Amino acid sequence: MTVDSATNQEPRAPENRGSVVISVDAMGGDRGPAVVVAGMAESARKNNEIRFVVHGDESELRRLISRRRDLSDRCDIRHADGVVTMEDKPSQIVRKGAGTSMWSAIESVRNGEAEAAVSCGNTGALMALSMLRLRKLPGVDRPAIACLWPSRNPQGFNIMLDVGADIRADARDLLQYALMGSSYARNGLGVAQPRIGLLNVGTEEHKGRAELKEAHDLIAAQAAEGGFDYVGFVEGGDLPSSRVDVIVTDGFTGNVALKTGEGTAKLVGEFMRAAFANSIMSKFAAVLAMTSLKRLQKRIDPRRVNGGIFLGLNGTVIKSHGSADATGVSAAIKLAFTLAKSGFQDRLAARVAQGAAAAAGGDAETAS
Amino acid sequence: MTVDSATNQEPRAPENRGSVVISVDAMGGDRGPAVVVAGMAESARKNNEIRFVVHGDESELRRLISRRRDLSDRCDIRHADGVVTMEDKPSQIVRKGAGTSMWSAIESVRNGEAEAAVSCGNTGALMALSMLRLRKLPGVDRPAIACLWPSRNPQGFNIMLDVGADIRADARDLLQYALMGSSYARNGLGVAQPRIGLLNVGTEEHKGRAELKEAHDLIAAQAAEGGFDYVGFVEGGDLPSSRVDVIVTDGFTGNVALKTGEGTAKLVGEFMRAAFANSIMSKFAAVLAMTSLKRLQKRIDPRRVNGGIFLGLNGTVIKSHGSADATGVSAAIKLAFTLAKSGFQDRLAARVAQGAAAAAGGDAETAS
Repeated sequence: MTVDSATNQEPRAPENRGSVVISVDAMGGDRGPAVVVAGMAESARKNNEIRFVVHGDESELRRLISRRRDLSDRCDIRHADGVVTMEDKPSQIVRKGAGTSMWSAIESVRNGEAEAAVSCGNTGALMALSMLRLRKLPGVDRPAIACLWPSRNPQGFNIMLDVGADIRADARDLLQYALMGSSYARNGLGVAQPRIGLLNVGTEEHKGRAELKEAHDLIAAQAAEGGFDYVGFVEGGDLPSSRVDVIVTDGFTGNVALKTGEGTAKLVGEFMRAAFANSIMSKFAAVLAMTSLKRLQKRIDPRRVNGGIFLGLNGTVIKSHGSADATGVSAAIKLAFTLAKSGFQDRLAARVAQGAAAAAGGDAETAS
Repeated sequence: MTVDSATNQEPRAPENRGSVVISVDAMGGDRGPAVVVAGMAESARKNNEIRFVVHGDESELRRLISRRRDLSDRCDIRHADGVVTMEDKPSQIVRKGAGTSMWSAIESVRNGEAEAAVSCGNTGALMALSMLRLRKLPGVDRPAIACLWPSRNPQGFNIMLDVGADIRADARDLLQYALMGSSYARNGLGVAQPRIGLLNVGTEEHKGRAELKEAHDLIAAQAAEGGFDYVGFVEGGDLPSSRVDVIVTDGFTGNVALKTGEGTAKLVGEFMRAAFANSIMSKFAAVLAMTSLKRLQKRIDPRRVNGGIFLGLNGTVIKSHGSADATGVSAAIKLAFTLAKSGFQDRLAARVAQGAAAAAGGDAETAS
């Protein structure tokens, strides 16, 4: 995008030229650091350009990493005694989180030694610590979590945000989500001119809450200079649709939709297994259809879409599923790498600043 | 339930003793009256106890019904010139809807000649006309639309409400949804002691919007005398769960969740067909697995769960999908019949009145 190039600044230099450094919180996931290190090794095997700063119990990490040929000379270990658990409340972690591996992982992004952080830990705590240490981008009131959604589009995924950073969002917040989501679609998924939809209970303009009608007008007004197309209101059934790339909603609705979609896909998968287990004939068919079933499973595999991203902070933080296995961790690391490589963070900051200026009635001229 | 029996009044007498009369709006669906009449015939063939009052163009209905042996002596036709289209706005229909088949179908419930109405027409208009003509039940501020959701429970379905009658709901409304949903689960699905969950973005008590925390306490306080168990907050992934029978939420969130679930099931179905169409081997497997695939399709078939029900009015109104085929229409009619047969409408009214009295600080003693 010429618009982005014009406003783009040089990304912060990583420690080693020619490589991208990702900061990884090795603790706090449901499956422990061994799985996280296995995911790092999977990424390192596929990608020569990647390096890691990894945070957690030093002796354990040293032991785990020494066993992995692909990792041993590409990791810096930062010792951290504390671990944020799934039960910890965000407010406690903000007060007492210094010394945890999560805090340390964010610190590596803050001080510029890594370009993005990945953690499988407690979402609320990760968001609270990221807000505290990285601070909000100028022009952003509410940061958002964006997720990928399997879709009928050529890129294979749509983006939905916010899926749970904040349960509230006013019209201005929804506009910022549109700007941040379109920047993410451009840099993370390679969609040159993303199509943005606003989630509602109907596509007619008279429907929905007052803040949605207001956001509808705000987003439409910024489409041209924002480098995106605004398709108007969309419904729950449009989340996997090919008529939209980015779906904007508040964090309450987005979180319910995300979990509803995951739950439905899981239920259908269970029903499918039950159906195939029903008779000798169908078991035989299932063996024959193994390749097809695996192909299907791969398309709807939640591990492949692993990685909610926090948008609207001074730094990129990726939240991996707490129960992610090595493949899931590796998918989250790949997303962090892709975004870092594209200079996403600085492009996003420029886009939001431009949007904020336009919305404030400043010079809304199209950057060339 | 002894509680219900104690407060139950005699249902209104249908025209013919020993049979249940359902009022059917034959017009306004996407597929026209022929499909609606075919659905009625399907129900009549399976069920000797059912009779119909059917509303629409008299000459066309007479022609369609005369061809159906099962229907010819079990239908009263009420002529109506007008048809509510999918494009009509509810506000227009409220002013000018008299004379439409939808209005006439509701009128048959209002004047007591039918025990429940079924329509495939415009949801907003059907709700507006039902509100106007049937009026809200005493004690109900916001009526709700409840839908069935395929689940892991023995009854095969969970209930979710509101899925779109009103985009707002305060704590008192959510309490009423809990009472109405539990009555529906008892009479429509045969669940003696329904388990109620309140949809939120997390199961911890400190999470979510203020009205949800308030509703949490209100619903918990009425569980004992309401004859249900309250399981607390549930998440989007719990909609098909076996730990809950009824999910309570506002109409905005419920509508997004419903359409997200439908859209996800559809997407997975498409991916599955694509996977099986991929090679000669998998096509052969698909033939062998035909029975299994059909069994799966039946479990997630939206036609089987056809029928959103309007709760909180002085009369039972079922909204069938606009695009329902004969099987879908027949499923909606079956639901109307089951509820009418159980004396649902009067049980629901008694339950809501009891709940309203208890919430108002009245005599909250358990009815015996």
